Amino acid sequence: MLKNVTLNDIEPIAIGAGILGTGGGGDPYLDSLHLRQAIHEFGPQTILAPTELPDDATVVIVGYMGAPTAGIEKLPEGTELVQAVRLLAQHANRRIDAIGIAEIGGGNSLGPIITGLQAGIPTLDADGMGRAFPELPMSTYLFNDELKPEPLAMVDAGGNQVVLPQTASPQWGERIARTLTVCMGATAGVACMPMTGAQFKRYCVPHTLTLAWQLGKRVQAARRAGEDVPQVIADTLQGRVLLRGKISDVNRRTTKGFARGTVTIQGFGTDQDELHIEFQNEFLIAYHSNNLERGKVVATVPDLICIVTEDEGQSVATELLRYGTRVAVLGVPAAPQLKTERALEVVGPRGFGYDVEFAPLAGGVIGL
Amino acid sequence: MLKNVTLNDIEPIAIGAGILGTGGGGDPYLDSLHLRQAIHEFGPQTILAPTELPDDATVVIVGYMGAPTAGIEKLPEGTELVQAVRLLAQHANRRIDAIGIAEIGGGNSLGPIITGLQAGIPTLDADGMGRAFPELPMSTYLFNDELKPEPLAMVDAGGNQVVLPQTASPQWGERIARTLTVCMGATAGVACMPMTGAQFKRYCVPHTLTLAWQLGKRVQAARRAGEDVPQVIADTLQGRVLLRGKISDVNRRTTKGFARGTVTIQGFGTDQDELHIEFQNEFLIAYHSNNLERGKVVATVPDLICIVTEDEGQSVATELLRYGTRVAVLGVPAAPQLKTERALEVVGPRGFGYDVEFAPLAGGVIGL
Repeated sequence: MLKNVTLNDIEPIAIGAGILGTGGGGDPYLDSLHLRQAIHEFGPQTILAPTELPDDATVVIVGYMGAPTAGIEKLPEGTELVQAVRLLAQHANRRIDAIGIAEIGGGNSLGPIITGLQAGIPTLDADGMGRAFPELPMSTYLFNDELKPEPLAMVDAGGNQVVLPQTASPQWGERIARTLTVCMGATAGVACMPMTGAQFKRYCVPHTLTLAWQLGKRVQAARRAGEDVPQVIADTLQGRVLLRGKISDVNRRTTKGFARGTVTIQGFGTDQDELHIEFQNEFLIAYHSNNLERGKVVATVPDLICIVTEDEGQSVATELLRYGTRVAVLGVPAAPQLKTERALEVVGPRGFGYDVEFAPLAGGVIGL
Repeated sequence: MLKNVTLNDIEPIAIGAGILGTGGGGDPYLDSLHLRQAIHEFGPQTILAPTELPDDATVVIVGYMGAPTAGIEKLPEGTELVQAVRLLAQHANRRIDAIGIAEIGGGNSLGPIITGLQAGIPTLDADGMGRAFPELPMSTYLFNDELKPEPLAMVDAGGNQVVLPQTASPQWGERIARTLTVCMGATAGVACMPMTGAQFKRYCVPHTLTLAWQLGKRVQAARRAGEDVPQVIADTLQGRVLLRGKISDVNRRTTKGFARGTVTIQGFGTDQDELHIEFQNEFLIAYHSNNLERGKVVATVPDLICIVTEDEGQSVATELLRYGTRVAVLGVPAAPQLKTERALEVVGPRGFGYDVEFAPLAGGVIGL
């Protein structure tokens, strides 16, 4: 298990979280640089396993909200998340004991480590998705009758601060926070869902920071050994390689605070296999097609659809998809917390508007 | 001076505030019904003159934000404003001693009276505009280096609550609050700018509730006596009748949280005089035109452009402009607080994007 994040741990976490992010969570490059600077300033960051967290501790969940297409053009100021934590603590009049990760994907796995360093409190080895998802209500912290997104604090890079003390529903919380995010330039730091240690342990997907770190180290070793990196990743996560090929088309737009679109991957070899993948920040559904009609669905949310470069196994974020890149598409079984009946209503294919039954991929280690 | 608002005072205030609203602030009809019910429940509401307010009292400014076109279709829940006041008091950890009126126009003059009754504290005989304006920074409370819009609390009819503890500028406060208003269905209750009694007295436009009430009573008397009501209104406010005629065209759209558009009034008589008036919730600029080119400007913000029915002198709100209505257009000099150099940057014609110099109408009693 990961006990501290030192300079040497940044790259493996970034590699692993990039893959687990299924295209979203923001490209980890900028956050890696920021975390490096923060460790130089404050020293290594303490990581707590959920079991080490006292039941009566207070945890808040943090992450950047917005369209990753905006995040790579408009740099964060760097203190949005810790400002949001302080704002929430002040509003709720509670001392915050530890930082919870909203989603283990991409840059959003590193932001909460930086935030913990800036606030002087540990970051927890767990998250609320076991991957990344585009919307606030798509969190294991909310698949219950006990917790709500609010109070929620948002801070932008320009000195604007907002608190949502009450929302009509998690969907309204998403709607209001997303609207604010768009107003703030399509990226904002969020701290929300103050909860007890007992609640955190009950609803988190545990050990996902360790999983990202171990996955990253395994990828680094495979690269050095000249192994088939995409296959190594699939094996490590008990998933499988769905297709290897070349990106032949990308249709992407930044709309209503999300990066949305479709990517087409033309398979290598003679069978001319083709896969279409639709995304909303994250990859949502992968299907074969004939003459632009949707054919056999190969994988859907909540299972992870990951695109990595074919040679190095480097994750490709939705905002960085480019025509001609040689990639492998991986299917990885989601954490069990995402596959309950209640969770599937929100994070299953129907939750995203696809009239498709969820057919889970076999296997899976996420959160174990 | 108005000391209490009883059942008999509702209609005169609604008539007067409808006129002072220059088309905006929301049609006072629904708020009149609501105030009637509130007085039945709680008794008359105490009105404090600014001079009666202790210097160390705490005042908050309240009003509905949004597009009046939405306000007449989507009824308020009725407690949005008092909920916003309570939310602000809780967030700022201050006891609120009195309610300040954001704008004397239309329904927004009655809402703060209802709010005072619901909260059990007096409403102040003053406002921050001496009329109505469409945007948050267009307030005499903000034409100084001392006060800011925040903290600002917003509540909608559906159970959503938002607090803005800090904004980068009054313009950013407007932008964020307007975005939220649109998200909330284009109308929301706002409480903001907690200030001391001394600050309130320094920046308010005093006695505007009394002015609305006196104007309404004068209109009622003129109607009973069969006088020329538009001329009586013009005389009472030291303004003048700009044109009498028929509404010959209305172009109106609800966009970005405002009711925007143009109304054309064809003058009676042989000279075929025609006046075009552009509006953003409120009437902003009136000009003659020839062949669709903008001709001589007759009146602009911050001076008041009021449209009343020709027979009864009943104000016509921008959302209720209808083809064929026989109206009089009045020009009324604005309160002196709106005509300082600093104020004109915001509420002069250039503040609204018109490349026109402000040529003030002579006279004026608003705020005296």
